[in-house]
Amino acid sequence: MSLRFDHVTLGQRVRFGAGCASAAVADEVRRLDARLVMLIAGEDEREIAETVVREIDVATWFDRVVQHVPVALADEATELATRMGIDLIVTVGGGSTTGLAKAIALTTGIPIVAVPTTYAGSEATNVWGLTEAERKTTGVDDRVLPVAVVYDPDLTLSLPVGLSVASGLNGIAHCVDSMWAPRADPINRALAIEGTRAVAAGLRAIVVDSQDADGRASALYGAYLSAVAFASAGSGMHHKICHVLGGTFDLPHAPTHAVVLPYVTAFNSGAVPEAAARIGEALGATDALEGLESLSRDTGAPRSLRELGMPEDGVPLAAELALAAIPESNPRTVTDESLRRLLFAAWSGSPARDLVEESTAGGNAS
Amino acid sequence: MSLRFDHVTLGQRVRFGAGCASAAVADEVRRLDARLVMLIAGEDEREIAETVVREIDVATWFDRVVQHVPVALADEATELATRMGIDLIVTVGGGSTTGLAKAIALTTGIPIVAVPTTYAGSEATNVWGLTEAERKTTGVDDRVLPVAVVYDPDLTLSLPVGLSVASGLNGIAHCVDSMWAPRADPINRALAIEGTRAVAAGLRAIVVDSQDADGRASALYGAYLSAVAFASAGSGMHHKICHVLGGTFDLPHAPTHAVVLPYVTAFNSGAVPEAAARIGEALGATDALEGLESLSRDTGAPRSLRELGMPEDGVPLAAELALAAIPESNPRTVTDESLRRLLFAAWSGSPARDLVEESTAGGNAS
Repeated sequence: MSLRFDHVTLGQRVRFGAGCASAAVADEVRRLDARLVMLIAGEDEREIAETVVREIDVATWFDRVVQHVPVALADEATELATRMGIDLIVTVGGGSTTGLAKAIALTTGIPIVAVPTTYAGSEATNVWGLTEAERKTTGVDDRVLPVAVVYDPDLTLSLPVGLSVASGLNGIAHCVDSMWAPRADPINRALAIEGTRAVAAGLRAIVVDSQDADGRASALYGAYLSAVAFASAGSGMHHKICHVLGGTFDLPHAPTHAVVLPYVTAFNSGAVPEAAARIGEALGATDALEGLESLSRDTGAPRSLRELGMPEDGVPLAAELALAAIPESNPRTVTDESLRRLLFAAWSGSPARDLVEESTAGGNAS
Repeated sequence: MSLRFDHVTLGQRVRFGAGCASAAVADEVRRLDARLVMLIAGEDEREIAETVVREIDVATWFDRVVQHVPVALADEATELATRMGIDLIVTVGGGSTTGLAKAIALTTGIPIVAVPTTYAGSEATNVWGLTEAERKTTGVDDRVLPVAVVYDPDLTLSLPVGLSVASGLNGIAHCVDSMWAPRADPINRALAIEGTRAVAAGLRAIVVDSQDADGRASALYGAYLSAVAFASAGSGMHHKICHVLGGTFDLPHAPTHAVVLPYVTAFNSGAVPEAAARIGEALGATDALEGLESLSRDTGAPRSLRELGMPEDGVPLAAELALAAIPESNPRTVTDESLRRLLFAAWSGSPARDLVEESTAGGNAS
């Protein structure tokens, strides 16, 4: 099949370096000629945020950050920013912090300089999300993309190892799913492979020593690429399954990804042997599956949905819901039966390799 | 050394596919809500351009395209665009065509949709150039970056094999130099490696059959990535040397790149073994040098500066001028003596491998 794709590259400045945050933020404030800066950083991030903004004037500090960005909170912050004539938002925090800034930018167009303290990746995407009455609405708008991101791995040194691993494996799941997601293209794949390599190397160093500077830098850099690749490629089979599992059985987000990823990879790998080989190579293994399983072992990730609390009799419902959500472009054709088999294997923690299909017969060659 | 970089990603839409041009251009015109389109395409491109714009209305067709964009021509085209109220420029052609559109955009901000017919890569950069009284002025401005690029490899089928090879090797030179250029960073390197792989595969197919659709697609895709990587990483040792050789001895641009690249690669590779290994792997060879030399042989590229017309006694002057231009960040320290040796080897076509330094002692480790 001849090469054919549409790729949107999101324009953004990235400043990366240990200890760079306060100087880089000051640089960006000057470059954007900002006069009135709103800082968004939750109470938990107060100490880190104070160092990040020490070279700039902050007109107001908004310190209430809530998961999933409630509409009422976004409205309040937006009203404050508008009333004060804020011309730049600086965020210090994880996905919820960046998300609140995006909600303000969505209606006001105020530019954002994001300083992430986790591997969430929201800072590298044009996706926004808002929650009202327990319903989450998401959308895509270039106005919410931060104009600049300042990555300072020193700010992630206090991220607990367990959380780092879970969040990092989520990043690897973004990368792997980007290899066959609906808008997967060779550019996304190249970035996803680089992201896989960097996150895996980072996590392996962090589990040995949470203060390993190179490991922290590698994981943060890789998490950034994983977000770029995922935002461009879209959700593939893996994320659709995890979304169903999370929504239906209230399973924890990151561990669910860690469990499911080897099974989806095993399922698809026969239909996309080149992509699977590249993932394996990026993980320093002979194939993708061996690489993911060895990374799971080395980082102590959970191995079954059962241990995360999913009931065995939930498998048929999960298969039914996921079947409707998985993109038609998935490289191997998905059926209710094959999905049940996959989900049961993931539930019980049985060997993922049993799902590998040797030939690509019946699949959508990619 | 810990990871530290500043990376600017230029936001742009890329549409890629054989036969996609006319539909994709029409899509972009709609998306940008353009009412008055100026088409820039030289007389040589008339036939191709007519097919590209067959689904849109063209308010005016500017068909005078001159190398290096003379100021008088740019002024005339700008005046016309302004007087007519043009709100979108569509280009069909190579670097000079895109360059004229950029000159108009520089002062007017009119957006550009570029449809390249060569591997020049100008469409993926924010660099503009203008020539007046034989002096070329260049600069960087985000206003000149095309908002969208439509790559249709069918439009390159008539590009002669010799020109395709020369232009493609220039693209590979962009990629290789991006591994150690002043603003080289891991993102540029990942894109450059992908670009190297794609251009090399494309050229190998094109020399066998100039109408090979997959080869044409691969070369065009790789040339795009080479431009992205090079625009971000900046000029390294290789391009500085070639610029001096071209300017001082009036050597032909692309063949000069083809000759010099293995020598610079040999010179630097000992100081950046990982980068060299990745280049080699992308070329399907055991190391970078072997890969470049084998590609040169397979594509019939020239092998010495002597055969391009450079006089032997030009070596000392070239070394002196290049020494002043080569970035201090080059991974191996450059001296007048080592440059003379490199240039003499390139002049005579002697084995590049003799320049490989076994240890990195005295180099700037990267």
